[in-house]
Amino acid sequence: MAFGFEVLHKDIAGRIGRLRVGSKTVRTPALLPVINPHLQIVTPSELYRMGVEALITNAYIFYRSEHYRDLALERGLHAVLDYPGVIMTDSGSFQLSVYGDVEVGNRETLLFQQQIGSEIVVPLDLPTPPSADRGRAESELAVTLGRIDEACSLVGEHSVLAAPVQGGIFEDLREEAGREVSRRGCIVAPIGAVVPLMENYRYRDLVRVVLAAKRGLSPGACVHLFGAGHPAMLALAVAMGCDLFDSAAYALYAKEGRYLTVHGTQFLSELQELPCSCSVCRSHTPESLRRSSDRERLLALHNLQVTLAEIARIRQAIQDGTLWELVDERCRSHPRLLEGYRELLRSAPMLEPFDRSTKRRFFYRGDESCLRTEVVRYQRDLARFDLVGRVLVSFDGRPAPGFDRCLAFRPPFGPYPPGLAETFPIGQCELPSWDEPMVRAGCRGIAALVRSNPGVTFAVRCEDRWSGIVTEEVPGIEVLVDVD
Amino acid sequence: MAFGFEVLHKDIAGRIGRLRVGSKTVRTPALLPVINPHLQIVTPSELYRMGVEALITNAYIFYRSEHYRDLALERGLHAVLDYPGVIMTDSGSFQLSVYGDVEVGNRETLLFQQQIGSEIVVPLDLPTPPSADRGRAESELAVTLGRIDEACSLVGEHSVLAAPVQGGIFEDLREEAGREVSRRGCIVAPIGAVVPLMENYRYRDLVRVVLAAKRGLSPGACVHLFGAGHPAMLALAVAMGCDLFDSAAYALYAKEGRYLTVHGTQFLSELQELPCSCSVCRSHTPESLRRSSDRERLLALHNLQVTLAEIARIRQAIQDGTLWELVDERCRSHPRLLEGYRELLRSAPMLEPFDRSTKRRFFYRGDESCLRTEVVRYQRDLARFDLVGRVLVSFDGRPAPGFDRCLAFRPPFGPYPPGLAETFPIGQCELPSWDEPMVRAGCRGIAALVRSNPGVTFAVRCEDRWSGIVTEEVPGIEVLVDVD
Repeated sequence: MAFGFEVLHKDIAGRIGRLRVGSKTVRTPALLPVINPHLQIVTPSELYRMGVEALITNAYIFYRSEHYRDLALERGLHAVLDYPGVIMTDSGSFQLSVYGDVEVGNRETLLFQQQIGSEIVVPLDLPTPPSADRGRAESELAVTLGRIDEACSLVGEHSVLAAPVQGGIFEDLREEAGREVSRRGCIVAPIGAVVPLMENYRYRDLVRVVLAAKRGLSPGACVHLFGAGHPAMLALAVAMGCDLFDSAAYALYAKEGRYLTVHGTQFLSELQELPCSCSVCRSHTPESLRRSSDRERLLALHNLQVTLAEIARIRQAIQDGTLWELVDERCRSHPRLLEGYRELLRSAPMLEPFDRSTKRRFFYRGDESCLRTEVVRYQRDLARFDLVGRVLVSFDGRPAPGFDRCLAFRPPFGPYPPGLAETFPIGQCELPSWDEPMVRAGCRGIAALVRSNPGVTFAVRCEDRWSGIVTEEVPGIEVLVDVD
Repeated sequence: MAFGFEVLHKDIAGRIGRLRVGSKTVRTPALLPVINPHLQIVTPSELYRMGVEALITNAYIFYRSEHYRDLALERGLHAVLDYPGVIMTDSGSFQLSVYGDVEVGNRETLLFQQQIGSEIVVPLDLPTPPSADRGRAESELAVTLGRIDEACSLVGEHSVLAAPVQGGIFEDLREEAGREVSRRGCIVAPIGAVVPLMENYRYRDLVRVVLAAKRGLSPGACVHLFGAGHPAMLALAVAMGCDLFDSAAYALYAKEGRYLTVHGTQFLSELQELPCSCSVCRSHTPESLRRSSDRERLLALHNLQVTLAEIARIRQAIQDGTLWELVDERCRSHPRLLEGYRELLRSAPMLEPFDRSTKRRFFYRGDESCLRTEVVRYQRDLARFDLVGRVLVSFDGRPAPGFDRCLAFRPPFGPYPPGLAETFPIGQCELPSWDEPMVRAGCRGIAALVRSNPGVTFAVRCEDRWSGIVTEEVPGIEVLVDVD
């Protein structure tokens, strides 16, 4: 059976891709709903009709249940779950992380997953928690890599191996783990043991470990963020280059009466309105939903539709080149997510090479926008300009006598020659009235140009209110103040 | 018949209210879909089943159509449209604004609207465009007020008069118009002629004229923002104190193949995904929707469901006290909306008295959050503290020897006594790691305390990285730098 991952569109480090699993394909980014054979609140065949191309179930649950074990060995997972799409199985590592022990070995689970017809199999890796010290993280990573090696020799042609990237909270270990996984030629790479970070809203740490893993992984790897599926954080994860997600949240949250939204979770009990356009919310009041005998299932359907809609929104944003704007929209919904977003922005220089060269637009959404990859790239490319003599950077574009060259100015990017006025990002950049952070960022562009053209004399022409910022950001530059 | 407007919950200047129209009530904020009897792409009875409690139709269209005119006079609007909810009628002013002339007078239209059983009637006001000079705006306002006077004498007990607030782009005229409308005891006050501002993305001007009208209007007036209904701007409008909206966008946009979202409008033709959880989007692909023979109606249903969901989201936000966070989320979706949002923030001192005193939480979403009403109020109330002797404001809360009193520090608010640690907003404020704008805002709180306690000696204890900001914002204050 043929397996492969192909990237079709890019934005930031995110991509729309196609994961080939034999004759089936999974469009990414994709959310794999978690199916527990014991309680199928929404059935796999319903999921398939909703357009879900892949799901994940836990091989260990099948392994431990006599009934399901025999059934699966006899008829195969696809028949037992009545699902024609791609099925991925987890090994029991999750149970290992929760209970500290499982009654199955690496070899056993890998063979079992293949026997029951799983198409994406996972070894029994060791999910190192964030609390683990370096010694433990290193030794557990060594064990995990050993088990991946064993897996490589055990996985046959009918399945593809998902090789987990561990390393705990240590960025260098995550990077090494990523490198080792890709060195072994693994196409699917789940980043493991991040659930405790998400449960504790440690999004800054999440961004650090995921980006570290990405630095080590091949750009061609299909990256699975294990246990991630809340719609509020999917855009952030995709922007870092994650392609696959799995989540039981739609069902678990429904069980607890929790209502998912793209801006957080609310309790159905505290809602006076159903702030969603899904079929459940448009055909119920909070009261009628609370009282419905079908409440848990209806809530699960809402949770699922909201999450699938967010996946669609992310894919559309990638095709439009507006993923930064979506990440900005989502990550302000919780201050700890905002921390994760700001950490991502600090990493813009690392993300810039992954980003596409031209986009539909650049919408300024606040001073965080000044740190986007497009600004980093533009200011780096400014160094390519070869200038001579006396050069004027004119904020309003009007020239002044006594200069060999006049450049216009577009914050937050910086100076530009008239010839670039229509090109991305200058031409597609939409701004509110200039504010201090964007002008300051633009001045850093002037400073970059000054640095790369030591022989040239520069001057800036601007209104008086900007002159202070100009001289702060470009010390010693001549400033001509516009009087009119 | 009894008419009245009652405010149940407040947030910023927005409110959840109940408009009583005889035995019927309309929960606000509410969107009144515009119904054109000639083309009912979604029928009024369908709207009623979706929970739409009021709609608006154009009396002039009925007046001009022999067929509908006779039908409406004979059987009444509710029977003709098959709609049991509240029906509001426009007078023909819209046609006046578009075609410059209408074949109906103020008296005629007001009597006709009542004859056909409209429950909320509108006089033939003059919609002064933003381009009009002051002279024209003044004289047209005088005419409009005269027609409102005539209307007051013509509107009987079975209808309520909606008295439009005009005045063009001139804030003092809008304020005067609001005052005059409330002086006449009108319960329903539409703010008119704002469509050209919205069509041209002039959201800053929109905020200015709406707030000006609000300054003049009684807080008890039910404010209708005429022609506003795009889901991306509803939260902003509600935050200013608008209660009613009307929109034909769901149908007009569908006709042009335009797909509404809370973050803007896209063309169905350019979508590769349907980024929405509504029943239409979860049961179609962009391709199948484009090819559907029912395309226009399905698109209209999507547009409507998205808009109704946004109204629900806004109502929920008001009850939770999270409307600022929703406005922030929506207004960053377009740089011109961001301008409107920033204009609203500049008006926070005017909005503060309308705002509620305690909320579920205060989530920091970026430096715009430093200008919210809660910060304005907190820093104003700081002046109430009576202090003596030597007072320390300690960034990490730890005291230092030699001070009579130690206050803790919570940006963006400022200093607080330990006793307020659990109260709103200090106790419910959730922040990312401190950044410069929030600390700067907090220091303005220290400055306010210093100003209101001239006899007291103040010192600030903080880490070195903040000392520069402290001395910039509170010149001359003693700063003890934390070394550890």
